[in-house]
Amino acid sequence: MAASLNPIITLTTDFGQSDGYVGAMQGVILNICPSAKIIHLTHSIAPQNIWAGAFVLYQAFSYYPSHAVHCVVIDPGVGSERRAVAVETRQGLFVGPDNGVLSLALAETTIRQAVALTNPIFQSQKVSATFHGRDVFAPVAAHLAKGVPIETLGEPVTDLVQLEFRTDLEAGQSRVIHVDHFGNVVLDLRAQDLPDPTAVTFTSGNTTITSLSRTFADVAEGELLAYVGSSRDHIEIAMRNGNAARALDLQQGDVVQVAWE
Amino acid sequence: MAASLNPIITLTTDFGQSDGYVGAMQGVILNICPSAKIIHLTHSIAPQNIWAGAFVLYQAFSYYPSHAVHCVVIDPGVGSERRAVAVETRQGLFVGPDNGVLSLALAETTIRQAVALTNPIFQSQKVSATFHGRDVFAPVAAHLAKGVPIETLGEPVTDLVQLEFRTDLEAGQSRVIHVDHFGNVVLDLRAQDLPDPTAVTFTSGNTTITSLSRTFADVAEGELLAYVGSSRDHIEIAMRNGNAARALDLQQGDVVQVAWE
Amino acid sequence: MAASLNPIITLTTDFGQSDGYVGAMQGVILNICPSAKIIHLTHSIAPQNIWAGAFVLYQAFSYYPSHAVHCVVIDPGVGSERRAVAVETRQGLFVGPDNGVLSLALAETTIRQAVALTNPIFQSQKVSATFHGRDVFAPVAAHLAKGVPIETLGEPVTDLVQLEFRTDLEAGQSRVIHVDHFGNVVLDLRAQDLPDPTAVTFTSGNTTITSLSRTFADVAEGELLAYVGSSRDHIEIAMRNGNAARALDLQQGDVVQVAWE
Repeated sequence: MAASLNPIITLTTDFGQSDGYVGAMQGVILNICPSAKIIHLTHSIAPQNIWAGAFVLYQAFSYYPSHAVHCVVIDPGVGSERRAVAVETRQGLFVGPDNGVLSLALAETTIRQAVALTNPIFQSQKVSATFHGRDVFAPVAAHLAKGVPIETLGEPVTDLVQLEFRTDLEAGQSRVIHVDHFGNVVLDLRAQDLPDPTAVTFTSGNTTITSLSRTFADVAEGELLAYVGSSRDHIEIAMRNGNAARALDLQQGDVVQVAWE
Repeated sequence: MAASLNPIITLTTDFGQSDGYVGAMQGVILNICPSAKIIHLTHSIAPQNIWAGAFVLYQAFSYYPSHAVHCVVIDPGVGSERRAVAVETRQGLFVGPDNGVLSLALAETTIRQAVALTNPIFQSQKVSATFHGRDVFAPVAAHLAKGVPIETLGEPVTDLVQLEFRTDLEAGQSRVIHVDHFGNVVLDLRAQDLPDPTAVTFTSGNTTITSLSRTFADVAEGELLAYVGSSRDHIEIAMRNGNAARALDLQQGDVVQVAWE
Repeated sequence: MAASLNPIITLTTDFGQSDGYVGAMQGVILNICPSAKIIHLTHSIAPQNIWAGAFVLYQAFSYYPSHAVHCVVIDPGVGSERRAVAVETRQGLFVGPDNGVLSLALAETTIRQAVALTNPIFQSQKVSATFHGRDVFAPVAAHLAKGVPIETLGEPVTDLVQLEFRTDLEAGQSRVIHVDHFGNVVLDLRAQDLPDPTAVTFTSGNTTITSLSRTFADVAEGELLAYVGSSRDHIEIAMRNGNAARALDLQQGDVVQVAWE
């Protein structure tokens, strides 16, 4: 990678926004790559929720230029033997712990090379045991944004940890992979997985939704609907001007029944 | 508009900060206008609360350079027939749904021209039915920031939807238009609306405040005060180092009695 | 100070993120210093909590380039006689009210000069009585970032208000100075304060932690540990993949017993 005139680093963490952690990471980045544009995808991932972080990255990364560096720190294994990695793909560079948090995004693009972050030269001089976001991932992301070749960061690796969707269409079951800020429920089912999208029903508890709508305004206020969502064509369940997750008591990991004729 | 060396795009949404939605919008913007400075006014507007979004924009927009593009997405009608618009004014450019969310700000400046976003060329190739923030408003804002003339975005419009303050001074009634993070209560009454600012009283339930103070420190800790606020001279009610909205049980839309002699 | 090619202004406030306050401050900054990179340390300090703001600044400031301007607005005395100050140090410039909120950071670096903000030229033309973040601190920070010499901002001062850690090792007591987003409990005790770090115990209520661990993964899920934290070697108490502050019912200001042999 050559250096970009407009380097971009996105951050996705479970650090919240009330401490100095994200601030320290940004300082480290700007010391190494002063022209970096730092973009916050989110810092509101529930503590240690690798799935939730993986999903937000998967929703957003492909809208960025391919020189963007995506730095993801949901890292319950910090300080242990878990690997830290950097990955170069056709659609951006990725830095984070090798615990699956990058994997939903990586599965949507083509990996060019991946390395374990074994070269201390591109990390902080003193690496703490509990904050690799600041001491390992931020400096590595900044060096990548500056144009440092990925192969200088450490040894090549190939067997990255992988999360997987668990839809079981044989059994008519789909999983909730995300509940968004509005209470919209995202299923791991995608439009293209449905044998017949015109005659599908979704059932949760006593509630059945009997067709796919196009948008919220297709139903009355307070009514439930299912539709092909804006995130990679996943099916979503929403309530117009309401909160479907609360109405249906659904959360990440729950099962929704899917049927068609 | 010519392109600025330092293009600015502000974002105001009800998307929250825990999903990839704002991240996707920023990626779209940076692909089109790589030098854009993206500023977040807020993403914490309560879902679908058009008034609250309109008020935050009204508080903040006029502090920006006149080349700034203000992109506002509180959009309960997304995917329906509601219009999407861009507006050029003496004090900035505005992009959003035509549901009133821009109107409090627009009333404070001079409109030069307004268009409906009917030209698909400046929008995403595939426009989803539920996320026009990413597919319509972000790309249009980025093109405006880059210097694309507003008249190329679509057909001229004139009859924009307008929100209005509802103070009824004849009846001695003012409305709460905003409760801020501190619990300070902003009334739709402005200093210049008061016949005599030296002898005014405000009453809510059993509580009466009998004069206008200058600042919090003019009263004792835990005491209520009314004062000319920092946002466009609206009258506010606060509790020194406390939460007035909670103490008085007031929220957006409630009425406060106003009297003077 | 000469102007930097990449001026940086960090913001730390108790303004929250749901109003237009931070947005207005950013507009003021960009009008004065269009190339400023604005970095948000946090806006989630509890209202009027000077200690909490001071701590976040102390955690993060030293990771920034020395030309960075740190603007801190936790300001319960706004509009009163409390002083507003700017301070130039070896590790950055600081702007804020003189109420101690800058003091934990300042104690970690070397002050070159400090001034009271008595020169109205570098402030807004009309200064409100309740929002000096927008009308005093933001414009002063922007002028400093642009290279205005600090001595032009006002009269020199020397006796800045100082917060102090209150560990009493004689009595075996340490104070909780911060509880972070994960529920990790930061003590005012630092590693170098401990006579013997290999044989130390920490007691809160009925719970005793009998040694220092290196990182979370050194104990089982749900177990408590004490360790030298990532923020300036303060001792922290955490629960692996859990919330120690909740488990031990500890908050800022509480006392933890410390003993060693």
